Amino acid sequence: MSRPRPASQHTVRRHNSALVLDTIASAPGSSRAAVAARTGLTKATVSSLVDRMIGAGLVVEGEAQARPGPGRRGTALHLSPAGPHGLGVEIGVDYVSTCLVDLTGRVRARWLRPSDNRASAPARVLTKVAAAIRLALKQNVPVGGVGVAVPGLVESASGILRVAPNLGWREVDVRGELTRRVALDAPVLVGNEANLAALAELWHGHGAPDFVHVSGEIGIGAGIVVGGALFEGVSGYGGEIGHLSVDPHGPRCPCGSRGCLERLAGQDEIVRAAGVADVSELLAGLDAGHQAATTAVRAAATWLGVALAGAVNLLDLPTVVLGGTYARLEPWLRGPLLAELEHRVVGSAWSPVRVVASPLASDAAMRGAAGTAIRAILADPDLFVTSTLA
Amino acid sequence: MSRPRPASQHTVRRHNSALVLDTIASAPGSSRAAVAARTGLTKATVSSLVDRMIGAGLVVEGEAQARPGPGRRGTALHLSPAGPHGLGVEIGVDYVSTCLVDLTGRVRARWLRPSDNRASAPARVLTKVAAAIRLALKQNVPVGGVGVAVPGLVESASGILRVAPNLGWREVDVRGELTRRVALDAPVLVGNEANLAALAELWHGHGAPDFVHVSGEIGIGAGIVVGGALFEGVSGYGGEIGHLSVDPHGPRCPCGSRGCLERLAGQDEIVRAAGVADVSELLAGLDAGHQAATTAVRAAATWLGVALAGAVNLLDLPTVVLGGTYARLEPWLRGPLLAELEHRVVGSAWSPVRVVASPLASDAAMRGAAGTAIRAILADPDLFVTSTLA
Repeated sequence: MSRPRPASQHTVRRHNSALVLDTIASAPGSSRAAVAARTGLTKATVSSLVDRMIGAGLVVEGEAQARPGPGRRGTALHLSPAGPHGLGVEIGVDYVSTCLVDLTGRVRARWLRPSDNRASAPARVLTKVAAAIRLALKQNVPVGGVGVAVPGLVESASGILRVAPNLGWREVDVRGELTRRVALDAPVLVGNEANLAALAELWHGHGAPDFVHVSGEIGIGAGIVVGGALFEGVSGYGGEIGHLSVDPHGPRCPCGSRGCLERLAGQDEIVRAAGVADVSELLAGLDAGHQAATTAVRAAATWLGVALAGAVNLLDLPTVVLGGTYARLEPWLRGPLLAELEHRVVGSAWSPVRVVASPLASDAAMRGAAGTAIRAILADPDLFVTSTLA
Repeated sequence: MSRPRPASQHTVRRHNSALVLDTIASAPGSSRAAVAARTGLTKATVSSLVDRMIGAGLVVEGEAQARPGPGRRGTALHLSPAGPHGLGVEIGVDYVSTCLVDLTGRVRARWLRPSDNRASAPARVLTKVAAAIRLALKQNVPVGGVGVAVPGLVESASGILRVAPNLGWREVDVRGELTRRVALDAPVLVGNEANLAALAELWHGHGAPDFVHVSGEIGIGAGIVVGGALFEGVSGYGGEIGHLSVDPHGPRCPCGSRGCLERLAGQDEIVRAAGVADVSELLAGLDAGHQAATTAVRAAATWLGVALAGAVNLLDLPTVVLGGTYARLEPWLRGPLLAELEHRVVGSAWSPVRVVASPLASDAAMRGAAGTAIRAILADPDLFVTSTLA
């Protein structure tokens, strides 16, 4: 039987630091006095916390502000673009991508390396990923956290990658393997690529709080966002729209099921049906109006419509965001996809479904991974400040 | 530009009344002193609010409690079983059912009338429903609210029934039509039967906070409960699992789509495939081990498994609750249903899905409707007290 203990000085400082930084993030350019007014903290407390955060590189002071009446003029406070960065990594099926994103959300550097990760054991792939992380760490930019997006089920509590059907991986401790290979001071977070892509869309994308983000690459994943928050299910395994069975007697899937959306509307299937070598050739064919290319994309759109109609019938979400390769195919997908949604969604006459292309396209998962690392700092800045000033 | 105004006496009393009643509901038998200790209100405030609620019939005092130390002995407070009741109504496709439920959740009376509502215009059916409500109102029991469950899409903001494919109804103001036919002092709430059934399951059923409740009657609907709250989508149209397309080239559905689960695993289809007249004959056939009956139920279970696997892949929910007719068929559905879920849910090896039969079976929607009416009183008892004592 433990009694609740009074909050310690340290707990209070952690809480107040997060409150102050959140205020500066949501109202950039606020003065110390404005932050005090918004948070209800005293000016002295705000000043002391702000000074610590300036010292740790989280906050910068800008120009002095014109201010009516007597008293010292306030200076504008901003999140520091020179402060800790989020290092975002995506382990795709056929590429590894990385980026550095600053506290304000701006992408400072990005890298993309084609890599046939299906053909290699996890250990070899993770050695490549470690090399990519090391390259990003050499950029002379402080890194406050690393986010890694993977194309498979990640248990939210442990961060363990349970299975990635398109990589053929099972039970891989991605965080453990990476921290063994790279000396890192910063925390490493691992998440499902579709969920992280949906978060990036929420933070930097089309700007609505309720949507399903479906990203088509070799695999197809969905991230469900409801009321401005990711819905990932009890263990983090939600959003697996790629394994919705749209044709119960369809082709076998590496996941063990049959007729999964991924097998009928994934990038590999579209490219194969169009008789081209890759997505660039597919886009060229579509631009030139080639019959095989348009037919292949229309067929994929129809299957995608069946699956998304199922998701919308269950979840009643007003917006479908096309991400990944689907964002680039949006002009050709839109028509047949909307037709299926209108036809198959029971509530479509009263709650019409909007289809938009993600402005982030294939960068979304990597951006979401970097953003998650940044959000972890913003949510508990005192932890970062204490380790920096120690 | 309106400034926030200080809470009025009345607002404060509303808030505190709800707090006190909620405490009595969750810890029945508490004394006034215990309620004061739990809520942080003064004993004088609690006593005054409790006395008002006793006067209005919401709360009753029981036996005096043994209490160590000096001071007056407290008496045990309970929700009053003689207080306002919820009148629950379900308009099914082939029946109308009603019940009276007291504040403690106990069913005090119930009625079920077969009625082929598909064959009649909404006005005729609602006249029958009004008669059923009038009969319940004659029971000499106070009614504090009416909840009506309907088999179709209900817009949550307006309570308008948008469409009920299996009734052939569109744009019916059920609340307006009923209050025109019955003189009612109590508020009327209208909701989707599957959502209300899921709420009843949450309040009175198997006892877990995350599940999908799928009820099979002539239509098939799902109610999704996450973290102890109903998830019904942005407009209230969520949970339409009956219109998940499980066979895109399957039979046409009145909803406009093809191969909907409802057309392949609904009660009518099972009964037809088994070559029997109704569910009673089906159950007799299953008990006797008749081939046609077991084959028909196994086929339905397989289609249901495809749809539920889709829902679980999207939502990562740990429990499927079989309701309505499916609850009675559970011994025969379970095996093939679990096989499909195991086979088709990507995360099933790490997050196994449990299948349970609802103890409420076909009563769930009506119980949920009554419960919603009761919860509305418990959430704002002062409104009820004021109108009663006025």
